[in-house]
Amino acid sequence: MKKFIVFVSIAMLAGAISCAQQALWGGGDITSPVIGTDNSAAFSIFAPEAQKIEVTGDFLPPQKMQTPMGEMDVPGSAALVKDDKGVWTYTTESLAPELYSYTFVIDGVKVCDPNNPYMIRDVASVTNIFIIGGGRADLYKVNDVPHGTVARRWYQSDLLQKDRRITIYTPAGYEAGNESYPVFYLLHGAGGDENAWSELGRATQILDNLIAQGKAKPMLVVMTNGNAGQQAAPGESPRGMYKPSFMGDTRMDGAFEEHFPEVVKFIESNYRVKADKSHRAIAGLSMGGFHSLHISKEYPDMFDYVGLYSAAIMPREGVQSKIYDNLDEKLKIQFDKKPKLYWIAIGNTDFLFKANTDFRKKLDEKGYKYQYYETGEGHIWKNWRIYLSEFAPMLFK
Amino acid sequence: MKKFIVFVSIAMLAGAISCAQQALWGGGDITSPVIGTDNSAAFSIFAPEAQKIEVTGDFLPPQKMQTPMGEMDVPGSAALVKDDKGVWTYTTESLAPELYSYTFVIDGVKVCDPNNPYMIRDVASVTNIFIIGGGRADLYKVNDVPHGTVARRWYQSDLLQKDRRITIYTPAGYEAGNESYPVFYLLHGAGGDENAWSELGRATQILDNLIAQGKAKPMLVVMTNGNAGQQAAPGESPRGMYKPSFMGDTRMDGAFEEHFPEVVKFIESNYRVKADKSHRAIAGLSMGGFHSLHISKEYPDMFDYVGLYSAAIMPREGVQSKIYDNLDEKLKIQFDKKPKLYWIAIGNTDFLFKANTDFRKKLDEKGYKYQYYETGEGHIWKNWRIYLSEFAPMLFK
Repeated sequence: MKKFIVFVSIAMLAGAISCAQQALWGGGDITSPVIGTDNSAAFSIFAPEAQKIEVTGDFLPPQKMQTPMGEMDVPGSAALVKDDKGVWTYTTESLAPELYSYTFVIDGVKVCDPNNPYMIRDVASVTNIFIIGGGRADLYKVNDVPHGTVARRWYQSDLLQKDRRITIYTPAGYEAGNESYPVFYLLHGAGGDENAWSELGRATQILDNLIAQGKAKPMLVVMTNGNAGQQAAPGESPRGMYKPSFMGDTRMDGAFEEHFPEVVKFIESNYRVKADKSHRAIAGLSMGGFHSLHISKEYPDMFDYVGLYSAAIMPREGVQSKIYDNLDEKLKIQFDKKPKLYWIAIGNTDFLFKANTDFRKKLDEKGYKYQYYETGEGHIWKNWRIYLSEFAPMLFK
Repeated sequence: MKKFIVFVSIAMLAGAISCAQQALWGGGDITSPVIGTDNSAAFSIFAPEAQKIEVTGDFLPPQKMQTPMGEMDVPGSAALVKDDKGVWTYTTESLAPELYSYTFVIDGVKVCDPNNPYMIRDVASVTNIFIIGGGRADLYKVNDVPHGTVARRWYQSDLLQKDRRITIYTPAGYEAGNESYPVFYLLHGAGGDENAWSELGRATQILDNLIAQGKAKPMLVVMTNGNAGQQAAPGESPRGMYKPSFMGDTRMDGAFEEHFPEVVKFIESNYRVKADKSHRAIAGLSMGGFHSLHISKEYPDMFDYVGLYSAAIMPREGVQSKIYDNLDEKLKIQFDKKPKLYWIAIGNTDFLFKANTDFRKKLDEKGYKYQYYETGEGHIWKNWRIYLSEFAPMLFK
């Protein structure tokens, strides 16, 4: 054997590659953040030539910022301190269980931590993430439980005249069994896409864990792309790798709501599901809450479970669509049919808080039955993960 | 209506959020890179306080670096130039069609370009990417063609005693039809995982495009996790968000090869596929080429198509496994059964070039039939995307 083949040690391969890699892309052997036994997070970066490094993240006391909607809270920042070897560090206090986001600011430039490969994109911004476990945050972790399948598929929309990408979660055991399942349609906000709930929202982990704990029924979760002008998430369509923008392709002109029965038909003709009102739920955040409101009242026999998470309520000024006509009459028809759950959730500093309060007043005046769930803070993914974790266990029971 | 609901303009929502987002995470309205009509790439970043900014990427003339394996080429770098507004820029020459990787180096720290949300992780390093279209690189783009489904599933391995994550590509039309398809098992290298081929390797796009052009047969592509010690890609298993390392869980002790029939059985009992030798292919890069070599000779009736891309040939020193015993005898059995295609591809500067040359000599001396494909450059994803693009059209014909 040795006569023919020069022995190539895989250990040498490892050495060569990791050396090349380190020279190429940096990284080295720093781990950042390191989570302490006291649930602190210790950030580090090797940067002997940098003048100033800060970390900005949602675990730091918020700062006030002026916006067109008034004063808003934004994540605070903290300075890292440089040692004599050029390594900068900062360690937080003990942190509460949560999925946190952060970036570094190196000499005034916001950039991701080069020693943390875990990142999530939100619109055009990429931030690092880490999880402090415990409590509800354990739902956001991958645990040693049976795992569902996440498929990225495409379906044809005749109304929107394009094929469109869609994310479909099927619960553990779906493929092996012959049971039929209920379906939960879960919609993202403006700036999001069919990847948002599974990435930023940890929907896969939350559902895997709730189902494994017996707290939620096994169900399909269907995550559409709610931007009627879009085929797929940025980078996943023939438009290529353009820079995404917040309202780029959202439209919000009624077209998404109008086409929604095509999604339901696609799911019900392609999956082993229970195709009736009592086995369909719809919920969404912000624009997705708006979509859930308008879809559920437009098709009052379709959904027995409706969730508005930090929802926008009314259409854009000047938008004309039959979807938004006669809201009062359509709501009356919907609530006369007594949906099993109409759930409104919002944070008490959300800039949509007043709009939701007014909408609830309207429902109260008419005697329409709904449930209300209020949290602290505002229009942030932390709240939407909480709302999903609270809402999913109430479905199909 | 207006009596009950305060009108919340979605345009105002957009304003507030994008403003908050910009303050939070930076970005602003710079796009980087901008691809010119001459196929140049123009990089920009706003960094008034930075002292020095470079771009390092595989489109720049390579530099030499010393490694344990001798001198290796690594991507070169170029300086960005600052204008009086604090915006730094650098524009390349016209670039050949290709998928390129790069990072910035800001005051000595390698970081991702904060204005380009398209990034790929390789082991623990994250780099930005962009594509210059044309020629073969058009295979790497999402084009307006029918798209297959990509599913992330889990299967149980009794031999490895864990459930394991697996990526499965089913071609466009799979779900709607009743045809049975051939299966291509596509294996990653050390430091990779079940996400590597679909992310770094653009396997989804390459297969969608080759199938749409009629150049490849519709087929399933099954992308396993080849690290026997691992359940799933970093961050996707109960181990949580640890910092990945190059050889962390690879083992390479024969266990992955031994368990491989479990994967084949899982696929063949869960998908509508043709379950015979002439409808099974296996290929992989580096460690995945090593796995393909050893799996295909261990189970000589399993695969009629075998691809070694920049393959490691021999096991690690000191590893004892029946998988690696009697290589010559097993190769004789395999080649006596005349596989339809045994394909060896490597770059002429690859540090495994000599090992592959020696292996080919061995095959030549025995009169075993194989095909050989040589490219320039070395042990890089650019070559592995090329090899996949060349190999897939030869399968199942």
